[in-house]
Formats: sequence, C-alpha cells, structure tokens
Amino acid sequence: MSKKKIIIIGGGFGGIAAAKMFRGRKDVEVLLIDKRNHHVFQPLLYQVATSSLTPSDIAYPLRSTFKNTLNVRVIMGNVVNVDHDAKKVILKSGLEYPFDYLIIAAGARHSYFGNDEWGKYAFGLKTIKDALTIRERMLFSFERAERAENAEERNKHLTFVIVGGGPTGVEMAGAIAEIARQTMIKDFRQINPKDTRIILVEFAPRLLQVYPESLSERARQDLEKMGVTVWLNKAVTKIEKDLIHFGEESMQTANIIWAAGNQASPLIKVTTQRINRIGQAIVNPDFTILESDSVFCIGDCAEMTDANGVRVPGVAPAAAQAGRYVGKQILGELNGKLRVPFKYTDKGSMATIGKARAVAAVGPFKFTGFVAWLMWSLVHVWYLIDFRSKFFVMYSWMWNFLTQHRSVRLIVTLRDREMQ
Amino acid sequence: MSKKKIIIIGGGFGGIAAAKMFRGRKDVEVLLIDKRNHHVFQPLLYQVATSSLTPSDIAYPLRSTFKNTLNVRVIMGNVVNVDHDAKKVILKSGLEYPFDYLIIAAGARHSYFGNDEWGKYAFGLKTIKDALTIRERMLFSFERAERAENAEERNKHLTFVIVGGGPTGVEMAGAIAEIARQTMIKDFRQINPKDTRIILVEFAPRLLQVYPESLSERARQDLEKMGVTVWLNKAVTKIEKDLIHFGEESMQTANIIWAAGNQASPLIKVTTQRINRIGQAIVNPDFTILESDSVFCIGDCAEMTDANGVRVPGVAPAAAQAGRYVGKQILGELNGKLRVPFKYTDKGSMATIGKARAVAAVGPFKFTGFVAWLMWSLVHVWYLIDFRSKFFVMYSWMWNFLTQHRSVRLIVTLRDREMQ
Repeated sequence: MSKKKIIIIGGGFGGIAAAKMFRGRKDVEVLLIDKRNHHVFQPLLYQVATSSLTPSDIAYPLRSTFKNTLNVRVIMGNVVNVDHDAKKVILKSGLEYPFDYLIIAAGARHSYFGNDEWGKYAFGLKTIKDALTIRERMLFSFERAERAENAEERNKHLTFVIVGGGPTGVEMAGAIAEIARQTMIKDFRQINPKDTRIILVEFAPRLLQVYPESLSERARQDLEKMGVTVWLNKAVTKIEKDLIHFGEESMQTANIIWAAGNQASPLIKVTTQRINRIGQAIVNPDFTILESDSVFCIGDCAEMTDANGVRVPGVAPAAAQAGRYVGKQILGELNGKLRVPFKYTDKGSMATIGKARAVAAVGPFKFTGFVAWLMWSLVHVWYLIDFRSKFFVMYSWMWNFLTQHRSVRLIVTLRDREMQ
Repeated sequence: MSKKKIIIIGGGFGGIAAAKMFRGRKDVEVLLIDKRNHHVFQPLLYQVATSSLTPSDIAYPLRSTFKNTLNVRVIMGNVVNVDHDAKKVILKSGLEYPFDYLIIAAGARHSYFGNDEWGKYAFGLKTIKDALTIRERMLFSFERAERAENAEERNKHLTFVIVGGGPTGVEMAGAIAEIARQTMIKDFRQINPKDTRIILVEFAPRLLQVYPESLSERARQDLEKMGVTVWLNKAVTKIEKDLIHFGEESMQTANIIWAAGNQASPLIKVTTQRINRIGQAIVNPDFTILESDSVFCIGDCAEMTDANGVRVPGVAPAAAQAGRYVGKQILGELNGKLRVPFKYTDKGSMATIGKARAVAAVGPFKFTGFVAWLMWSLVHVWYLIDFRSKFFVMYSWMWNFLTQHRSVRLIVTLRDREMQ
C-alpha cells in the first residue's frame, strides 16, 4: 500500500495541531509548508510589540517542533495555487507537490476595508515582523519627542491611536499605557507623562463584543483608569501621514495601530468559489470546501458554523480544535470510517488589560482584576510550546512585574529612510 | 560659572566610558548622540549572528544606562559635520548643538577595499542588524538546501566562506561549524553533515596575527578538528552572486561572511585632514585631532600610538580606556591641570573557537582549550552591562552547552525579495 500524502499549508495553531495527529503513522506522510520558518504564539504577539518579550520567547522553528517526527517534512515556501484536478499545490518558486488530502490553515492578514493606502501609516499585528515594526516605530517616536523643538511636534509623537476594540486592540492599548505613562517616562528629560495620549477607537457601542456586556464595561473602566481614552461608536474615515480622520474631526498622531479588520489569506480565493466578504472559505460541516472533499480549510481562513449552529470564533484554541478534528477524520477515513460533523467546544475567552488587570469569561462564570490576570498568565504560559520559552517568559514577566522594567527596547530593523 | 558642554558622538565602549566619567559633575553637561538607541556588546555579536543569543542579551538602550545620570542627555541622531570655528556639531536633520569639548567615538564599518559592490553578497558584522542579516540568511540557506532539487544547488547553499582570519573571522567560523555540523543537521531530512563546507580564508600566513604564533597555530588546529578548512596566504579577488574568486580559482557559495577590513566612520574625514588609509584620525598623544585641542577622537575611528610607542589596538577594552582617559583629562583641565599623554595598558587578548575551545594571551602567559574558554566566558559575562543580560546570557550558554540546542532560529526581518 502506498503512503497517503497529506499537505498542510500554514504552521499556525491549526496546522500544527493537524500535523501532530499524524505522528508515527506509517501509512501517511505529511508535508508542512509555511512562508515563515517558525510558529508564532499569536496571543502574546502584542507583548513583543510593546517590548515585554523578545521574538524568540514566543516563536519557535517549525522544523524543531517536528525534528523527531520522521513522517512530517517541513519546507519554507509560498503556496500560490491549488490544482484540484491534478491534486497538487504550486509554490511561487514553481515547485509542485502532489497530495491526497490538503489542509489549508493559512490564516489571515489585517485589512483596511478596501483602503490599502492606510497601511503605510496604520500598522497591523499578525507576524513577528509586524510586532517589531510597531515596537521600533513606537520607541523611535519617543526619541523624536525627546528631541522635538516645539510642543506640537512633541504631542504628535506622544499620541497613540489604536483602532479596533477587540482583544488585540484592548491589550495593545493597556500595554502602551503602561509603557508610555510609567516605564519610558523615567528615561527621558523632555517628556512629561501628562503629554502622552492613548486613544482606543471602536466603531461598535462597546469593547470586546463577543464577551458578556459586564466584562466589556469593566475593560473600558480599567483602561480609563490606566489613562486610556476610549472612544465608542466612532468610525475612522481616512488615514494620512501623521493624521487620522473621524468624519469632520481629525487628530495629529505619528502612531496608529490597526486592530480593526482581517482578510483571509489570498490563497483561499484561488482555491474555492464559496467565500465570504473577508475572503474566508465558507466550509462544509467537516471543514471541506465546496469543490473537493479532500481539501479542508481551517482556522482564520475559514467560516464555519458547527453542528450545534455555533459560529466558530477566530481564536487559537478553535483553530487547534479544528486541526485535531480534521486529522482525526482523515485517519478515520483511511480505516474505512465515515466522517462526523464538527462540534466546537468553547473553553472561554480572556483578555489582559494591564498589570494585574484582565477580564475572562468561562462558561457562565466571569472573572475580572487580579484573578482574571493570574488565570490569563497561567493559561498562556502553559500553552507556550517548549520548556525554554516557558521559563524565559515567566522570568521576563516576573522581572517586569517587579521592576517595571521593559527588557527589550532596541531599535534595530527600521530602515534609515523610516528614521529621518 | 556656566556649565561646560561636552558632546560625545557614539555610544560604544569608548563613548559610554567617557560619559560615565562626568557622572554627578555639576559643572559639566554631557550630550551623548548615537545613530542607534542602544549600546552593543560587540565582542558577542557573532553569537547573535549564529543563533546562540538574542539581540536583547547583548544590547541595551543607552537611555536606560544614563536614566539616573541627570547631567547626561541622550539623543538619537546622525552627526554629519563638525564646525570647528563655531564649535558645534550638525545633524543630518539640520539640528545643531554647541560644545566646549567634543569626543568622537563613532566607530568603524566594514569595508571592501574599494569594492563596495561586494557588499551585496558578502556580509559584515558590526551592528545588531548586521548580525540578524547574517543569521537569517544562513538559516534561509539551510531551508533552500532542504528543498533543493539537485546536488549542485544543495552544495552551494551548504558552503560557508568566511573572509578574514582575525578574532571575528575565527569566532564566526567556529560557531558556524558547530551549527552546521551538529545543531541544524538533526532538523533536516535531505541534508547530510558531510555536505556542509566551512572555509576560513586569510590573506596573511597565519590566523589571529596580533596573537603569539603558537596560539595562531593552535586556533588553526582547533578549527580544522571542528571541520573548518583554513586557507592561509589566499587573497579574495572578486565576489559575485553565489560566487567567490581567488585569482584563477573560484567557488560557488550562497554564504559569504566578510570579516576582513574596516573603514572608520565617514564623520572623521569631514572633521580632520590628518587621516590614515582606512579613514581613522591620526591623533595626538592626548587623542586630540590636528585641527583642535578640544576635539578628541577615540576607539575604532582613531589611530593612536601611545607614550610608550605602542600602537593601541581596535578592541573594546582599549576604547574604554581611551574614553576614561579623555574624561579624566577634560575634568583635570577644568581644575587647571595640564594634560598627560595616554599610556595603554594591555590586559591580554582572547578569542573563542567553539565549545570548550579558545585561545588567550595575557602578558607572557598563553592559554588554550577548556581553560581559555572558561576565562573567555567569565570575562565576557562579567563585562556585560546589566544584571538581567548577565543572567540570560549565562542561562543561554549553559542551555546550549548542555543541549546543543540553538535557541534563536527565527527568520523574521528578511524581505520577500531576498527570499525567492
């Protein structure tokens, strides 16, 4: 019997969970393809963006994860097309790989609702490189404020606008408030904490819309206490260099963080006809796409309503569940079993707001403040991939907690052009 | 009495040592200007380039170093000219700052002996960004080898040529040998340790020319044992994409590290007429330049022969000595004392070759092997700036030593164009 070839595109939570299901199976060989050479623990990406953690704390080479799993091969490559008839994927470099089953877990990028030109001034947070860009621009902005020659220029560099009040926006706003109002200030001679402004802008009437309303309100209160101005029911209408518009109003700022919209990987639209407004594949109850029952699409690049009628959210635990589910269905099928429809298990949601402040909803239970923050810390460290990262992250957090020190404040990768 | 204004250009070992001399002096105010926002512990830069340490282990924000030193102000800026008559420095942004004393400690970049076009294919190692470029290109080269379709392409990506047999070249060659032959290999399916070639090329008849001859020979032997091919008396005549020429011979390689030549900061040649072949200021016995007795030039951008006729080497301890010396002369002058000529104190030289292998020369004593390596480790950890780094670096080294694991293997900052 020839081995079944399984290709997995994307080494995020979904792709890794799927690949691990095939460990040690002699009848299956897996090819994991990713544009990058590492898995990123995305829920902690905002901590890299805000100088608390260093990239290697939350990212790990895919190759190392599977080094002892001989039936999983990892390659770096950019898949640009899928040939359904020939059952193969095509890389940008021209290389082609055949498959029996294909699992697309290619994730999403931020999108600007059709205004791609905003991307030059408003920075999203999906990859390690994104996080470094935000971090270094923010640090450089403080440097510019320090050597500014008038108040207007100084204020522009000390105004931070975060667009989007979901978990990423809330976490970024809280972390920036801590940095700007406490950590950084001591190191500068010309900057006063009162000069910094952090504004979180949300289009809807409340933050954290998928959370219970009481937690949304608590998050807003916590942020305001930390010095963040929260604007609800407010739409961004235009973004230019150092300027953001809300209808008639506008505001000068050199720092705009974009946490408002996503767009699925462009691979989806060349793979399936049935997509939604943000480019996700609208998948069948077993995550297959319209065109093929051997092509699955999971995680942030899929829209899925499960067998209980629950819309599966775009979070890491859901992607991992989907990956394990698809792995199980394929293995079952190889043993002659029929597929069963997916049922999502909601383990709860949590977002951290700042030191000893977080909100969490687990089933009917709600948590806030220090207890929620402790839960959040333990869960996130627990799920980090290897021991070394766990140790380093815990140590960094303890250190930051005790000293208010931010460990990682280097401006390295910005190009000279960006630093005039 | 008005305060004396001292400007220091460059936050390397020389600049920081000078700035620290003025701590707490009420009659002096110091402005430290650097193009970057951080001090780099350059002697360990090769460990960032070879994935053992992460940038924040060996770099530290200048601003944090001086946060409690109220008479030292730090700004990020690029000084492009010095006006001797008006006694002021001019930044690229147009800002100007006046000085009573100026200390130029602006360092050096690598140079390609007039062949600047080689820089596109042969990468030097002076900054954190350089180290990340080398590291990510090297990791990506292994990825290319893994997916190569023929032996020629694979070999090209597994051949590493290091040009220059000084301490940096020797340390890089040893570290690359460890990575390529031990660490990385396990993670790949298509690569055999025997396929990798590491070649260290030196123009002179021996490695580590400023060391005693017996240590040069020992370093060569140690490197050969680790699988490095050492070519002495060999001149690079041309470098092209994936190709390096030595006269009639040539070799295919995607990985060329340039550790062969330096050129002082371009600021020197606009500041003084008396410069040497590599653009260093040829300074007076008190480190002042020809044109002014209030402008000092120290570290890698100066050529200095001390009062004992000893040529001061371009190493971190020498730069720090010069910084302390100049600080002392200025402070003495403010108290009416005459300057005394500089005398260099040689504390010895050491270079590490690999795990438990190093060479060290301290006065008449020579050390090799594990003892030299232990000395090297202790000295380098000791001089790292803050506690946190010391702890992290020791932990990382212990971890690497015990597990052969290289912790930091992310490809993050390479642009898509570079990753075809």
